[in-house]
Amino acid sequence: MRDDKMVLVAFGQATVSQTQNGAWMHPGSDPNVLQPEYYINLGREVERAGFDMLFFDDRWAMPGTYGRSFRDAVRRGTRVVKLDLLTILGLISAHTERIGLGATYSTTYFHPFHVARAFATLDHLSKGRAVWNIVTSLNQDEAENFGTPFMEHDSRYDRADEFLEVVTGLWETWERDAFRLDRSTGVFADPDKVHYLDHKGAAFVSRGPLTVPQPPQGWPVLLQAGQSGRGRKFAARWADLIFVVAAGIESGQKVYREQHTAFEEVGRTAAPGRILPAVQVVVGPTEAIAREKKAYLDSLSDPEEALILLSELSGLDFSSYDLDEPLPADIVSRTTGSQAIVSSIIGKLRANYGESATTRDLGEMMGSQSGVHIIGNPQQVADELCAWFEGRACDGFVIQQADTPGSFEDFGRYVIPELRRRGVVDEPPTRGTFRDRLGLDARAGR
Amino acid sequence: MRDDKMVLVAFGQATVSQTQNGAWMHPGSDPNVLQPEYYINLGREVERAGFDMLFFDDRWAMPGTYGRSFRDAVRRGTRVVKLDLLTILGLISAHTERIGLGATYSTTYFHPFHVARAFATLDHLSKGRAVWNIVTSLNQDEAENFGTPFMEHDSRYDRADEFLEVVTGLWETWERDAFRLDRSTGVFADPDKVHYLDHKGAAFVSRGPLTVPQPPQGWPVLLQAGQSGRGRKFAARWADLIFVVAAGIESGQKVYREQHTAFEEVGRTAAPGRILPAVQVVVGPTEAIAREKKAYLDSLSDPEEALILLSELSGLDFSSYDLDEPLPADIVSRTTGSQAIVSSIIGKLRANYGESATTRDLGEMMGSQSGVHIIGNPQQVADELCAWFEGRACDGFVIQQADTPGSFEDFGRYVIPELRRRGVVDEPPTRGTFRDRLGLDARAGR
Repeated sequence: MRDDKMVLVAFGQATVSQTQNGAWMHPGSDPNVLQPEYYINLGREVERAGFDMLFFDDRWAMPGTYGRSFRDAVRRGTRVVKLDLLTILGLISAHTERIGLGATYSTTYFHPFHVARAFATLDHLSKGRAVWNIVTSLNQDEAENFGTPFMEHDSRYDRADEFLEVVTGLWETWERDAFRLDRSTGVFADPDKVHYLDHKGAAFVSRGPLTVPQPPQGWPVLLQAGQSGRGRKFAARWADLIFVVAAGIESGQKVYREQHTAFEEVGRTAAPGRILPAVQVVVGPTEAIAREKKAYLDSLSDPEEALILLSELSGLDFSSYDLDEPLPADIVSRTTGSQAIVSSIIGKLRANYGESATTRDLGEMMGSQSGVHIIGNPQQVADELCAWFEGRACDGFVIQQADTPGSFEDFGRYVIPELRRRGVVDEPPTRGTFRDRLGLDARAGR
Repeated sequence: MRDDKMVLVAFGQATVSQTQNGAWMHPGSDPNVLQPEYYINLGREVERAGFDMLFFDDRWAMPGTYGRSFRDAVRRGTRVVKLDLLTILGLISAHTERIGLGATYSTTYFHPFHVARAFATLDHLSKGRAVWNIVTSLNQDEAENFGTPFMEHDSRYDRADEFLEVVTGLWETWERDAFRLDRSTGVFADPDKVHYLDHKGAAFVSRGPLTVPQPPQGWPVLLQAGQSGRGRKFAARWADLIFVVAAGIESGQKVYREQHTAFEEVGRTAAPGRILPAVQVVVGPTEAIAREKKAYLDSLSDPEEALILLSELSGLDFSSYDLDEPLPADIVSRTTGSQAIVSSIIGKLRANYGESATTRDLGEMMGSQSGVHIIGNPQQVADELCAWFEGRACDGFVIQQADTPGSFEDFGRYVIPELRRRGVVDEPPTRGTFRDRLGLDARAGR
């Protein structure tokens, strides 16, 4: 039995049709993603259910790769709406007290001074709960919205390394105890403890100091997804939490071992980042009810919608492959997007449908997206999650939702109590910052 | 008597020492600007007091022009802290229902796709209350934080014009009725009513569509400050609300006439933007109490702090002028910052201290910043505000605070009831968007 506890993260999107295509048509789902109540309810429910954290992914463009058009995506609501996340987390922070609050921000379309300042602000206003999900951005449609040249995979990571040096450097331009606010002496802050950064690098220049005192967490928590060789190296250097996709427990263990090798290579072995695979859980009081729920969810999705999303993720236009012909053998190497995720998906496809799996097979399999699906009663779900955790395939999970916020309510009602009984999850602690409560490495001040 | 009503705007800053230097040392001031409660209380108080709107200015650097160092500013708290405003407005939106919520965002350091998306998000989540205060940025310290070359005054406005074309164009990439959310048919949105923008200009490229349906206000309300010739032209084209600085009623009338001439030149005469001068009001139940309050506030400020801020605003290092020597005759033309504001300040200085006014005179005069000061009992303050309004020197006011939020509480307690009695201010309307309630021109859909 492990001494540490599972980290449980709720995966949100500021859009409908979360990670189960068509789920906004589920009659119990709240589709009102342009209304503040949607986010307030979601935040409160995730906190009440017992999750450690809520984070939102992002994308700065509609899916436009499939058929080189956004029309099908707009009609179906396939992630065409994506709202600004800092505004949303400001809103949620006022209605929650404990959970970590994560927003995705790109190292490609923003300047590090802005990103450092925005997450430092969120960290203060949430009293130490800000989480930045770092993405290097991989999408041609986004590049066209920002008028930036599309960058190759590895050069995006070189730029991202420098971006992180600037952001974390700016967070430390105010020493921990620089801020005084002493009315008796009139000293607002100690000028000897506020410093220029004076960064002049290949991609960025930033002098500093930041206009925000050091965040309560020192560094807001850093979350990152990326399983390519270069992505693993980047995560080993920077990430506190690592979001991964694995098709099953063995591949999870392989991902886990590879990431720990990467941590060893950079000397982060005392308190390495936590590895959290994506899981979709459909749970009910009985296995039969859970299976009926899953069958109903799958009936709402459409193979084409999955292919729209997979086209966006991979940079490949799946509308150009005949639905009923086998996919090309070299499909993974053709991707300009996330190779790790596409490789995992195609691996799972060929394991389930054989080497001559068709485009239609892929669309059907992907109705509820990538990652592991666990369907069953509370004991069955807990058995599976514990097998991953105890088998060192992960340190916790990113729980994806189908119906919203029903998936998180179910997880809180059926699964978390069972995980607490088994001792792998604690009652939520309430003191300290989010970084403290998770026992993450203190990064600032090195 | 005018048919329209005064627009009343509360001017906030995400920092201490608002527009009265040293006011954070006032024992009734809340200096806890890193805490969410500060912003929640401020928003609620401004709404309760009867203001139409709360907006925050911004600056993306500490003041570092005076003595070419930030040290004095850090020690005194002279606007060295500036938090990210969209996070703050997300927070305040959840705790207010009626007031417009304004954030300053620069056309120099951000991309229009991000700005369009962020304000569209705030507009949805606040149910039609977002206000963007457009600044073109004029500060060398900011340019060093972002590693951007410092741009000349007029070229900043050329870039800003294009920036606004992109932002307003993106807000209209979704037609008003494109968003359906129809579960019975599975139609999320009508693809015939969502469009590319396909902007390719001198400074920006952005294809669109935006990932946010058209904001409830069509275009979020546009606020702008800028009284130079080029600034007036820009405001005439774009602004719904115009924030000006005038030393007295006659100069207010001149500014008002000049801006209306600019509106005529672009054909915006049916519903031109509203012109709102900055005013600091110190009010009490009697004139004697108000004068004592003002004297106490002035005792908290220091001439050097005023010179730190004025150096930042003008781009001139006032530490290089001897405190007790007359200022150079051509001081206005030496500024690289806001010429209109510096010109107004120097005009007021010479009117009050003569042509040989010294640097120290300037610092002392500026203890409570630019704009008009009105000190008195409720009737005296209302008399003065009504004289400006009825004399067509303005369409309302931007009320600056000294102690926080005491200045706004006082204004709500003493002045607004008196203005209502005189019929120049209404009970706050609650229906419709902020743009509707102010009777501003509908900008979208032209």
